[in-house]
Amino acid sequence: MSDLKTRFLEVYSVLKSELLNDPAFEFTDDSRQWVERMLDYNVPGGKLNRGLSVIDSYKLLKEGKELSDDEIFLSSALGWCIEWLQAYFLVLDDIMDSSHTRRGQPCWFRLPKVGMIAVNDGILLRNHIPRILKKHFRQKPYYVDLLDLFNEVEFQTACGQMIDLITTLVGEKDLSKYSLPIHRRIVQYKTAYYSFYLPVACALLMSGEDLEKHLLDVKDILIEMGTYFQVQDDYLDCFGAPEVIGKIGTDIEDFKCSWLVVKALELSNEEQKKFLHENYGKDDPASVAKVKELYNTLKLQDVFAEYESKSYDKLIKFIEAHPSQAVQAVLKSFLGKIYKRQK
Amino acid sequence: MSDLKTRFLEVYSVLKSELLNDPAFEFTDDSRQWVERMLDYNVPGGKLNRGLSVIDSYKLLKEGKELSDDEIFLSSALGWCIEWLQAYFLVLDDIMDSSHTRRGQPCWFRLPKVGMIAVNDGILLRNHIPRILKKHFRQKPYYVDLLDLFNEVEFQTACGQMIDLITTLVGEKDLSKYSLPIHRRIVQYKTAYYSFYLPVACALLMSGEDLEKHLLDVKDILIEMGTYFQVQDDYLDCFGAPEVIGKIGTDIEDFKCSWLVVKALELSNEEQKKFLHENYGKDDPASVAKVKELYNTLKLQDVFAEYESKSYDKLIKFIEAHPSQAVQAVLKSFLGKIYKRQK
Repeated sequence: MSDLKTRFLEVYSVLKSELLNDPAFEFTDDSRQWVERMLDYNVPGGKLNRGLSVIDSYKLLKEGKELSDDEIFLSSALGWCIEWLQAYFLVLDDIMDSSHTRRGQPCWFRLPKVGMIAVNDGILLRNHIPRILKKHFRQKPYYVDLLDLFNEVEFQTACGQMIDLITTLVGEKDLSKYSLPIHRRIVQYKTAYYSFYLPVACALLMSGEDLEKHLLDVKDILIEMGTYFQVQDDYLDCFGAPEVIGKIGTDIEDFKCSWLVVKALELSNEEQKKFLHENYGKDDPASVAKVKELYNTLKLQDVFAEYESKSYDKLIKFIEAHPSQAVQAVLKSFLGKIYKRQK
Repeated sequence: MSDLKTRFLEVYSVLKSELLNDPAFEFTDDSRQWVERMLDYNVPGGKLNRGLSVIDSYKLLKEGKELSDDEIFLSSALGWCIEWLQAYFLVLDDIMDSSHTRRGQPCWFRLPKVGMIAVNDGILLRNHIPRILKKHFRQKPYYVDLLDLFNEVEFQTACGQMIDLITTLVGEKDLSKYSLPIHRRIVQYKTAYYSFYLPVACALLMSGEDLEKHLLDVKDILIEMGTYFQVQDDYLDCFGAPEVIGKIGTDIEDFKCSWLVVKALELSNEEQKKFLHENYGKDDPASVAKVKELYNTLKLQDVFAEYESKSYDKLIKFIEAHPSQAVQAVLKSFLGKIYKRQK
């Protein structure tokens, strides 16, 4: 484990302990235990890419200058805020999607004593973010910008989740609603803002940059990268190894507006389209297998591989057009982390 | 309808229209319609006491000076933020409590096309608050205090909800966990902060007051009032008229830590306690009827009436000890609104 990751994990323990002793609430023993177990179960178990990339980005923006202990702590704390945000979304998404597993373990709401209490646990996770920000950033000149940033990104994510849910359900299983433009809109709002824009924006704020001024071009690149990331996610949901990605994908059963089904619709002849309409979004294994069979017939694995390499080339070209070497380094480091990922 | 209430309702339309055209998100037609319907269903249908009390309190703090149009708009907008917060809590609470009706109509998540999308709708409601605050208060000197205030109060409410849920479920129906101290803690955090402290704190911030300095004593009185309010709520859940309170109470079925069961435990002999243990928290009408019968035997209606009048006297005494006549007026107006309420 890299040194920075060790430091990052230490910061988790500090933040958790502060939250478990927050003077704004009188904990009972039961409730303190509950929150500790809930945090340990849901917050630190992922890949931590989003969180770690705040420190990485901040470091690159400082152009090689050694970070002080304080800088490491603060950039880690911001990284953890993003991990908390992610945990909050995942806990609630799993309820809405009726998922079973997450990160190789049962979804939190599936645990016998948890159930619908998980809704409130999601809310608590979300509420921890401003507690962390207030404790460690209240005196910083960029405090109010941090609050605005987290609020705006959360809003955009919730809106993305909304069009995802509505497109999936309100259309009452009408596949003809699915297209690349609607897929792109869902992905951009639901994933790209919080996973790609937010970590870099946090690092920029910490370095004293003005977001309005600095980020217009960087934002576009990050959103593009986030879109590519979610297409990978859609791909792995069907073609990834469950023991590697830590969950069993249910996009087909759940009638999700996945990149795969959108591509399949685009490439299908009339007969194949009819076949998709008949089998997509059914909860029985036979229909799911039939959809996967069609994906294979249409060679979606190859179509994806081509999309992946084209996206990569396009992104590299965008990045290299950026005037700042430090920002280029941040963006390339990000891209390197996700290119051809298996999980 | 009073003139201020008419103005207040007009502000709702303005805020809604701004949210439906928020440039931070690219709405589809479907999603804009969804949000509009969701807002109209969940936000304005309550008694609006919390929201209206921001304007009322602000007016009293200005000691009779006529409010400008801008002041009416801004205090109404803050009032609506509290109504949005309330809607967010209710939408999610109803899911967690498996409730059926709310404000005389089916709970939002019970509508056929809604279901678990209601979880994300709750999140959206919550996210609208910082959008409203940013649009109308970003330039105010108290903007950051407003954000901190809403964040802190939401955190405390979620914590109150947590101990309520945990006490109710983790104890695996162990009535001996229920007592006046735990009831008071649940009520204080879950209800009193956002329903009583928050509206007055908003009005004080708008009048340019420093919360830290001004509010220590007022806060205690408001929390006390909020406790009294929730005891009324517990009482009405069982003894109120469903057609008046707009819902069918399920506290007994849901094994809630209600003031009534806590009082019943306190007043019961061993045999009655055993009877309570056997029948409380069962989902069949016969058990519910038996619990209500015991409440009648123990004369809980009289016990409540005595509690109500004693609370009132105590609160009036506290209020009259406060040095500021304007603040006294705010607090008395609040108390007047809830004393002996039937819904």
